[in-house]
Amino acid sequence: MKLTPAQLKQFDTDGYLFFPGLFDPAETQTLLDAVPALYARREAFNVRERGSDAVRTNFAAHLYSEPFARLGRHPRMIDPVQQLLDEPLYMHQFKINGKMAFEGDVWQWHQDYGTWKNDDLMPTERAMNVAIFLDDVNEYNGPLMFIPGSHKRGVIDAKHDLTTTSYPLWTVDHALITQLVERAGGKQGGIVSPKGPAGSMILFHSCLVHASTSNLSPWNRVAVYLSLCAVSNHVRRFKRPEYIAHRVFTPIETLPDDCLRQPCPVDLPWKNGMPASALETSLDELKF
Amino acid sequence: MKLTPAQLKQFDTDGYLFFPGLFDPAETQTLLDAVPALYARREAFNVRERGSDAVRTNFAAHLYSEPFARLGRHPRMIDPVQQLLDEPLYMHQFKINGKMAFEGDVWQWHQDYGTWKNDDLMPTERAMNVAIFLDDVNEYNGPLMFIPGSHKRGVIDAKHDLTTTSYPLWTVDHALITQLVERAGGKQGGIVSPKGPAGSMILFHSCLVHASTSNLSPWNRVAVYLSLCAVSNHVRRFKRPEYIAHRVFTPIETLPDDCLRQPCPVDLPWKNGMPASALETSLDELKF
Repeated sequence: MKLTPAQLKQFDTDGYLFFPGLFDPAETQTLLDAVPALYARREAFNVRERGSDAVRTNFAAHLYSEPFARLGRHPRMIDPVQQLLDEPLYMHQFKINGKMAFEGDVWQWHQDYGTWKNDDLMPTERAMNVAIFLDDVNEYNGPLMFIPGSHKRGVIDAKHDLTTTSYPLWTVDHALITQLVERAGGKQGGIVSPKGPAGSMILFHSCLVHASTSNLSPWNRVAVYLSLCAVSNHVRRFKRPEYIAHRVFTPIETLPDDCLRQPCPVDLPWKNGMPASALETSLDELKF
Repeated sequence: MKLTPAQLKQFDTDGYLFFPGLFDPAETQTLLDAVPALYARREAFNVRERGSDAVRTNFAAHLYSEPFARLGRHPRMIDPVQQLLDEPLYMHQFKINGKMAFEGDVWQWHQDYGTWKNDDLMPTERAMNVAIFLDDVNEYNGPLMFIPGSHKRGVIDAKHDLTTTSYPLWTVDHALITQLVERAGGKQGGIVSPKGPAGSMILFHSCLVHASTSNLSPWNRVAVYLSLCAVSNHVRRFKRPEYIAHRVFTPIETLPDDCLRQPCPVDLPWKNGMPASALETSLDELKF
């Protein structure tokens, strides 16, 4: 899968690319079927919604779940990101966000790179967000919302929101959101939200401002959000636990294209549990 | 304005009718311009969002604000409801819901008649909900969501939600919502959300199950929600303050069609303040 010049230009302009139905229903189902057992685990890597038992985010499944380990090395995802960043990649974050029927809470407007910079000391924005829908996404189950072109604004000052939801986030202030939306076309295209069947993929720039509203519908909206970082741009601090921000900077090697359809051996370093070291954190800047 | 047989049939089937752009921009602006002064008042009739100063609901503006008093007697609204209920009407509730940019919180799935029955002892569901958009409504600013046909289910047992938001509500349980959405077509039409320009109107059955999500967009979504009750069906209890559930059952007389465009004298019984009696409540059932 090679991105066309038109796609490269569109990514540069809008800050995202949408690939509806990139993974077929069988591939998607393999992933979705593995989610309930992961969400059921009472572990630090499952963050639950405020005032509810529903899982908001599961972290690092690619280290202990076989289907997600395969997804983390899938060429349909890795190849285009490698093309865009023009460098080998490592996995910086791997999340399965629940946004469960009736329970899924909002994610305030934010840039992901804000958190990676402030918390993880990632040197530049040379990292890519990937969203893979495990459920159909429609206007009612809390789709991702983007402000097209907002990645051009670069890194935005943010404030650390510790109260709105159960997961702390560096969020962007309202006056600036208003300005960015206006500049992107206001009510005509100033906000977009790619919707499509389970198996769709979005690649979006780590500075693209995004949010999602709560899910009041009876339809789960489970999605994998992962971030692939250029190896040379690896983080310089382990302030957050390893299950949130990874510490292994080895380049990802892709598996065959049919790796979600066929048996395919894959390494699962945390298959016997998360190592105690994954909870160790430090405020020191690392020297390399 | 007379509803056609096709509209009457559609209302019976779906439980709502949508009239995009029924009020023109000048008429709508007259109403919208009056909102900030109403929202600024520190009075019991302004309920604010949880953890925010933004107004969630303003009550009873038709009793102290001239533009809204005129809207409350507008023939484009009153006539079709009178045709549907085939009886003179009185104003049971009059709200201006803020759903303000960035601040507007969710309204959980509910039927309005559940509250009117449980709290106000309104005998039957012979009352109509009316929504009038004062701002453009799009998929991003927390539009109303309906489950078409759910009014046919009649009155649904509900639980009193006192915690999710700042306004108590009798809400419908999730298993039943799932069932109603499935019966209405699931992902193909099981939920609908009428969107359109400021000045649009929706009439919807008092048993139609509805909700709305939070508004993360930079666009306010102010709307008037009022309920018109058949006079013979007036409430039998004053358990809620009068600014929430009205106690004057005199039939509404309509004003001329141009009443929002021309000066038009109108009675404002609370123009000098809300009477102390409006706060008096009682658990007794009234005998008439």
